[in-house]
Amino acid sequence: MNSAPIGIFDSGVGGLTVVRSVLDRLPHEQVLYVGDTANSPYGPKPRADVRAMALAVMDRLVDDGVKMLVIACNSASAVALPDARKRYETGRGIPVIEVIRPAVRRAVAASRSGRIGVIGTQVTVDSRVYEDALSATPGLHVTMQACPDFVPLVERGVTTGPDVLTAAHRYLDPVRAANVDTLVLGCTHYPLLAGAISYVMGEDVTLVSSATETANDVYRTLVERGLERDPAAGSPQHRFVATGAAEPFAALTRRFLGPEVTTIETA
Amino acid sequence: MNSAPIGIFDSGVGGLTVVRSVLDRLPHEQVLYVGDTANSPYGPKPRADVRAMALAVMDRLVDDGVKMLVIACNSASAVALPDARKRYETGRGIPVIEVIRPAVRRAVAASRSGRIGVIGTQVTVDSRVYEDALSATPGLHVTMQACPDFVPLVERGVTTGPDVLTAAHRYLDPVRAANVDTLVLGCTHYPLLAGAISYVMGEDVTLVSSATETANDVYRTLVERGLERDPAAGSPQHRFVATGAAEPFAALTRRFLGPEVTTIETA
Repeated sequence: MNSAPIGIFDSGVGGLTVVRSVLDRLPHEQVLYVGDTANSPYGPKPRADVRAMALAVMDRLVDDGVKMLVIACNSASAVALPDARKRYETGRGIPVIEVIRPAVRRAVAASRSGRIGVIGTQVTVDSRVYEDALSATPGLHVTMQACPDFVPLVERGVTTGPDVLTAAHRYLDPVRAANVDTLVLGCTHYPLLAGAISYVMGEDVTLVSSATETANDVYRTLVERGLERDPAAGSPQHRFVATGAAEPFAALTRRFLGPEVTTIETA
Repeated sequence: MNSAPIGIFDSGVGGLTVVRSVLDRLPHEQVLYVGDTANSPYGPKPRADVRAMALAVMDRLVDDGVKMLVIACNSASAVALPDARKRYETGRGIPVIEVIRPAVRRAVAASRSGRIGVIGTQVTVDSRVYEDALSATPGLHVTMQACPDFVPLVERGVTTGPDVLTAAHRYLDPVRAANVDTLVLGCTHYPLLAGAISYVMGEDVTLVSSATETANDVYRTLVERGLERDPAAGSPQHRFVATGAAEPFAALTRRFLGPEVTTIETA
């Protein structure tokens, strides 16, 4: 048993989809969430800068006493995982979970044809991290597609309606034409567009959400290491911190998480 | 455009997992939810009784002006769908969505080996509705397992911890031994146990949640029929009604849905 919070971060609000899946499965846990809004978005920045920013946020979470780190951001996972594992897992005994490998495992398990699509930000696509992870499985055919308008739509709170469907068709019609049977949502913002994405891809295509798969990884790791929080320790208290602008972070946090959000701190 | 609410019902709180997936995808829609707690659980009751109860709830939702009906309950879907389609879809032009076929479609699409497990209440298992729906696809090997303790655990708010893991092992170890690669959560309560279920089944087994798949069906049907609500119509107002006891319905409703829940009505 360990009552310390789970530290989860992203460049902005996308990682809240991971928080929500974690709290659905583990309602007694406490979360300390940092949205690195001072540096958002990570996507267009140089790899070395994103790595430094991600490690700075994780240093802070570890200083605040978290028992586990969750990199709830594809861009940060792509560039910072090896350093983070070394610094926190090997160095301090704090497990580090990220969003790419859980989703890749699920896609490989769920694809019947081996034709897998991956959508993400331009930076995630350019990093080739998904191709690298998928290349461990022979015989796959991978179609990558960057969807640069999706994150701004979600951050504006626009997750349905004609603008979303127009963008979805523009990005996804070529992926559909590639005959994929499985599509990885390679950005933590995208589960909020799952209705539109599923509509455009058609009902035969299985969507893989890194939020869901990552939350299962968190559950497994906590149970295996005996790190769960004792329910008798009282109602969980969560903290949500924005490193820069509080809005629209606060509004979106309330919308995505609701009752678990009490106050939004800035620092 | 159509501003009427979507009518969603279950015998109790399980259908709230469907509500949540619907509101995640369609944040401008309004939901009128009925938990038929006066008759809960449907599971152990005779088929004809469950059919009559489900149609009574749907009659009420239609009288209240809903634009769509969602049967967010496996037991009710299993026995009432043909009658409901005839009465509301053919008779009144109100589309009827249910939870079984969307999950079956996803399981067939996601299983590589054709070895599929389905867990549900004793009544759902005895109804053979999943075997019937899956039998349309040749070559599948289906393993059914009733999990009678899961619903009482969820209704008591116990979704993690040793009691859940003990029950999960008792029910799921035989399913795992059958070598399934896909497991259908054939009860709308079960997504709340997804962490424990995924942990026991192992990371190679794909879980199919009827909540997610049904929500995608709702999205598709609204868009195809032009029934979406105009976002300019103002903030959505939801209603949650219990036909019998308000508790623990109200407490669980607040926990699962949070900010969308204002008051719980009883009637």
